[in-house]
Amino acid sequence: MLEQALQYAHQNREHFLNELENFLAIPSISTDPEHGTDMQKAAEWAATQLRSIGMNNVQIMPTGGHPVVYGEWLQAGTRATTVMIYGHYDVQPPDPLELWTTPPFEAAVRGDNLYARGSADMKGQVIASLKAVEAVMRTGDMPINLKWLIEGEEEIGSEHLDDFIKNHGELLTCDFCLNMDAGILGEDKPSITTGLRGLAYFELRVYGPSKDLHSGLYGGTVHNPAQALAELIAGMHDKNGRVTLPGFYDKVRKLSKKERRDFARLPITGKEIKQQSGVPALWGEPNFTPAERLGARPTLEVNGLLSGFTGVGSKTVLPAWAMAKISCRLVPDQTPEETIKQLKKYLKEHAPRDIKWELDYLHGAGAALTATDNVGVKALSKALETIWGKKPYFPREGGSIGVVVQLQKHLGVESVLSGFGLPDCDAHSPNEKLHLPTWYKGIDALIHFIYNLKA
Amino acid sequence: MLEQALQYAHQNREHFLNELENFLAIPSISTDPEHGTDMQKAAEWAATQLRSIGMNNVQIMPTGGHPVVYGEWLQAGTRATTVMIYGHYDVQPPDPLELWTTPPFEAAVRGDNLYARGSADMKGQVIASLKAVEAVMRTGDMPINLKWLIEGEEEIGSEHLDDFIKNHGELLTCDFCLNMDAGILGEDKPSITTGLRGLAYFELRVYGPSKDLHSGLYGGTVHNPAQALAELIAGMHDKNGRVTLPGFYDKVRKLSKKERRDFARLPITGKEIKQQSGVPALWGEPNFTPAERLGARPTLEVNGLLSGFTGVGSKTVLPAWAMAKISCRLVPDQTPEETIKQLKKYLKEHAPRDIKWELDYLHGAGAALTATDNVGVKALSKALETIWGKKPYFPREGGSIGVVVQLQKHLGVESVLSGFGLPDCDAHSPNEKLHLPTWYKGIDALIHFIYNLKA
Repeated sequence: MLEQALQYAHQNREHFLNELENFLAIPSISTDPEHGTDMQKAAEWAATQLRSIGMNNVQIMPTGGHPVVYGEWLQAGTRATTVMIYGHYDVQPPDPLELWTTPPFEAAVRGDNLYARGSADMKGQVIASLKAVEAVMRTGDMPINLKWLIEGEEEIGSEHLDDFIKNHGELLTCDFCLNMDAGILGEDKPSITTGLRGLAYFELRVYGPSKDLHSGLYGGTVHNPAQALAELIAGMHDKNGRVTLPGFYDKVRKLSKKERRDFARLPITGKEIKQQSGVPALWGEPNFTPAERLGARPTLEVNGLLSGFTGVGSKTVLPAWAMAKISCRLVPDQTPEETIKQLKKYLKEHAPRDIKWELDYLHGAGAALTATDNVGVKALSKALETIWGKKPYFPREGGSIGVVVQLQKHLGVESVLSGFGLPDCDAHSPNEKLHLPTWYKGIDALIHFIYNLKA
Repeated sequence: MLEQALQYAHQNREHFLNELENFLAIPSISTDPEHGTDMQKAAEWAATQLRSIGMNNVQIMPTGGHPVVYGEWLQAGTRATTVMIYGHYDVQPPDPLELWTTPPFEAAVRGDNLYARGSADMKGQVIASLKAVEAVMRTGDMPINLKWLIEGEEEIGSEHLDDFIKNHGELLTCDFCLNMDAGILGEDKPSITTGLRGLAYFELRVYGPSKDLHSGLYGGTVHNPAQALAELIAGMHDKNGRVTLPGFYDKVRKLSKKERRDFARLPITGKEIKQQSGVPALWGEPNFTPAERLGARPTLEVNGLLSGFTGVGSKTVLPAWAMAKISCRLVPDQTPEETIKQLKKYLKEHAPRDIKWELDYLHGAGAALTATDNVGVKALSKALETIWGKKPYFPREGGSIGVVVQLQKHLGVESVLSGFGLPDCDAHSPNEKLHLPTWYKGIDALIHFIYNLKA
């Protein structure tokens, strides 16, 4: 049965790739209101796929935002393991567009890679799960029960998924959730992520004069909002890269000796990070290794800046306002709610009286940890070892995935986190890519994973 | 003769306004390469005007950038005063467009004001000069010799005018230059500006990673370029609003007791600046009054900021680069050349090694002072007193006008600086406006000015 499923997957690789390309052609950018129709189209596409591979009770279920696609196959019996397979059909905005070699929504294969927005994050992962299940369904008896939860708001913080999970506890009951949105440490480094950082995303606006002023006629008497914003941002870190928001580290769990040993064993080196990012030198808290800084330490990042005249040439304007997008990565036991208070407190303490400021909290999620003896972690670990020929690593990752926190919080469900996107996949950058050899190995691993869960 | 000229001006007010509206309809934005044809159109428009009011030898003369419009009338004899009348036919970009009540290049009268980009800065002033001369030419004998210098690069620093003046010394010989680009202190506050700050305009770019990164996958190990830029900008002022560039104040002339008394007499109050700018509180060097800070102290302003994701919603990106437009207002005896060195030195000393930076010097000009016993200052002072019924003020202004420095440097020619744009004219902002009652009074004053210069 296993062999037939694997054979089916191997024979249908080209077909799987074509279907992925069709999915990638839908510009389902959840943050952009102009793409509402595309979001609906992508949800319908996923629903059609679920039906075509034999899932039952497939529904596009409304939320306060973009809908959730649900489907199930529960005929393995009550003693069989019930696995929820998570996915998201939304993608990040593709800008800056001019840096793409080929258009972001026209998938293009170059060498071993498939280039398109969403190829790695995470339409490729959704298709891998669908096709592994299809291979098992078409060639034998599915040994486990399946529930699918495919959302459309992961890239904007899964805000409405929280209520959806809370309100559909019975429908979503399961033993664990397989979440392939976390990626893998390297082409030859199979991995299962056991920790995820949380997120709190803000927009900070600083207002000065009531309108843009002539910098010569007012400069020297008015606090420039762009300068005031720069001063506020500069003060958010100390010289060692530590975040200065009051109380920011109070709830951060100290790393045990064992945890520090685990981090030291990970194949994440400063040299690699430097190479992948292209920076001239690394930066960050000197008392922690790069792997610890990524996995176990919170951060505050400026995601965007805008003020005044930014076109070609010059304009001697004293801008009326300045804006920064700022986000914090959170670790256990920080919460977005406390981070909002800490940032507000910082601004109250440090913003000068000659400007006004406004802070919008856009979205967020807490951090999460998964036990390494979870039944799903074990089954996937064995599958990865079979395909890759080596034991997987168990890193903690820097990114945050809202659904992981929400499932833990509302249903007590742990997530088994992996995936087949490589660290250099440029998930949120131009020329996002999926490494196809890894992707094909991933489909095989998921077929093994399903059979490893057979009662 | 004077009376007939004034009568002519009064009878033709509507006609003058129509011609101004036609001039304003040409979007002659010198900084934007897409408006090259409009620049040519505006130059031709000005040349046609000069011919129509009886000027001779009218030419559109090439420069390394946008052309200069020249014209002359030299039949008043060798003993008559020769006045150069300066103007610029270019305007600032109109963005942000959405804040304009009516389109920037469709002049609209509302109440006492004419709204359009360039209405105050300075197409309105050019038309006022043209029409005052027209009134004298049509109704009597012009008592002075005239030379017109109307350039197309004032809003981008008059870079190519420098060579033009240097290379046309004989053509441009004159007793002084009348420059109406400096404005007036208020509707009831006639003024002649005796000092102007200089300018040095820069674009600073900070580079970190080789591409935009996922802030979760790299945050905490890479110095965020937007943060690094904010840190560099924040360090450019101390807590008292003093600029920290090394040596920045070394060449700044100390104010004498008399100069400080002159500043104290000016009708420029902190209260007014607060009201006009709409800021909650003033800012700046505590040891100097607001008028001194505007007229006699140098500044460093952020004119624009851009980095990462700035659209609606959120994107968890760690940006590859960040950019700031930065400009310094200079006072005697600072020079742009020294300011470039000082800013570079600051950056070399303060930029961390984990980022790269690039500094482009876009344009600049030195500061300027005009003697109050200049023959043109006296003639205009008397004219303003006749029309306004009060002695004019003699402020120093915060803005910089390249041509003033260039004429002084190459030809030893002083500029008589005034104009009929009010401080709240929003010269570089949306809804730029010209106060029509002041403009009409200004045309009358210029007719008096011409007759005051009669030998």
